[in-house]
Amino acid sequence: MALNLDLIGQKTEPIPFTYDADRVILYALGVGAGVEELDFVYEKNLKVLPTFAAIPASLPFLKVTKGARVNVPKALHMEQKIVLFDRIPTSGTIFTTGVIKAIYDKRDKGAFINVLTESKDENGHPLFENHVAVVDRSAGNFGGDRGPKVEAINPPEGARPDFHVQYATWSNQHALYRLSGDKNPLHIDPEFARIGGMDRPILHGLCTLGFAARAILHSVCGNEPTRLKSISARFTGVVYPGDILVIEGWSSGQGRYVFQTKTQDGRIVLGSSLAEVA
Amino acid sequence: MALNLDLIGQKTEPIPFTYDADRVILYALGVGAGVEELDFVYEKNLKVLPTFAAIPASLPFLKVTKGARVNVPKALHMEQKIVLFDRIPTSGTIFTTGVIKAIYDKRDKGAFINVLTESKDENGHPLFENHVAVVDRSAGNFGGDRGPKVEAINPPEGARPDFHVQYATWSNQHALYRLSGDKNPLHIDPEFARIGGMDRPILHGLCTLGFAARAILHSVCGNEPTRLKSISARFTGVVYPGDILVIEGWSSGQGRYVFQTKTQDGRIVLGSSLAEVA
Repeated sequence: MALNLDLIGQKTEPIPFTYDADRVILYALGVGAGVEELDFVYEKNLKVLPTFAAIPASLPFLKVTKGARVNVPKALHMEQKIVLFDRIPTSGTIFTTGVIKAIYDKRDKGAFINVLTESKDENGHPLFENHVAVVDRSAGNFGGDRGPKVEAINPPEGARPDFHVQYATWSNQHALYRLSGDKNPLHIDPEFARIGGMDRPILHGLCTLGFAARAILHSVCGNEPTRLKSISARFTGVVYPGDILVIEGWSSGQGRYVFQTKTQDGRIVLGSSLAEVA
Repeated sequence: MALNLDLIGQKTEPIPFTYDADRVILYALGVGAGVEELDFVYEKNLKVLPTFAAIPASLPFLKVTKGARVNVPKALHMEQKIVLFDRIPTSGTIFTTGVIKAIYDKRDKGAFINVLTESKDENGHPLFENHVAVVDRSAGNFGGDRGPKVEAINPPEGARPDFHVQYATWSNQHALYRLSGDKNPLHIDPEFARIGGMDRPILHGLCTLGFAARAILHSVCGNEPTRLKSISARFTGVVYPGDILVIEGWSSGQGRYVFQTKTQDGRIVLGSSLAEVA
């Protein structure tokens, strides 16, 4: 079925997402935080991980992509950028709009869909944005604009990283992370994973991004979530639950860090990654 | 403050507990189930672990013990017996009454409080009971009945166990388990644990019981929850997150298994334990 291009630019109503401290903690455990980062997993002095921003964005994202007739279960999550304007509350209701910013015709590669979600607190105060890029490989060649060429962001060749963090993912990381909302069976169902060409269920890309953001938070933000202003990454490889993630970052000045996330075997799983830190 | 003995025998109204598949899965992960026991952590063919029965019992238990002026944060959980009448639904509302059955005066050892909770489904069909014994060490010597002497249940001396299962608890097992409801800071707050005389936060006794029940389920119930008719244990030792649990059981005929749970260093953490299997 052809994509519904008319939906481009049409913003949804604000969609509410109500949550409590338990939900914040569940997310933190889902992206590998633990008691050695107590403020992220205990309600006493609770802090919200910046990448929690991806959770309230999920419903508006699904609404606009389904509306545009994107084959969501078969679409591939390519890129995500989270821009943070303020501290994320530890509970309450967040209101998020979604809009398709552009659909590019990458011919045989498929259609690239760019979605923007904008989230505000109960008083209309902006909290964060998500910029999400997915590809629907079955929807190319619709005669549309090819879109701009995007340059990859690479670490400086041969330079030692300014930080290097290693995290082991848990063998049940995917089973835990999905309780934060993304129930795509690719991440739990062995049969479904095999049909998708994987050996077994894979970790959510946004879960890996959560691990990477923790590494940045602990390495260059002194554990203070509000110091992370933005984080972006391209999902370039599959992570299996139990894999070890190696996150390295290089300062490029003015609080900007190019970073890269590899698995234990050296495969880059998050490429073209940039964090902005205050 | 003296205990309110008048509350003995006074049953609460049925207290509702509403839950969904996510809650069931969260509990299963909390007691160490993982994707190798997929039916317990994936909604497709979801099964509910029998010890999930302890969760809806928690509010009624708190209501009657607080009503009796038991110093709940300082009370020690001594024993729990769960009796199962039918399959626990994977979602819905369960209605549970609570009643104090007896309060025994163990003199300087404190007051022993026996609580019974009874849970039914939305149609009034009995699902399970919890028999909970706690001790309030500050409340003895009130001039009451000492209560019956209870014999310890021990494995047959020198006999090889009929099953032997080893489970590693996760370093964040307590942080995950507490999301199922028991927020006692002893299980997450290092300061609180130190005040309580522990090196660090300890695992919930009911979490350890959940691990033990999984061992029984997988060893002698062919993974079918309805085959477990009852499980009871005495909490005899502290478990730290990350400890290894060794669960061994001995058949004593007619589907009865005496079992015992030790940590890696041989300390018995669940003693006087009995499971009845159909």
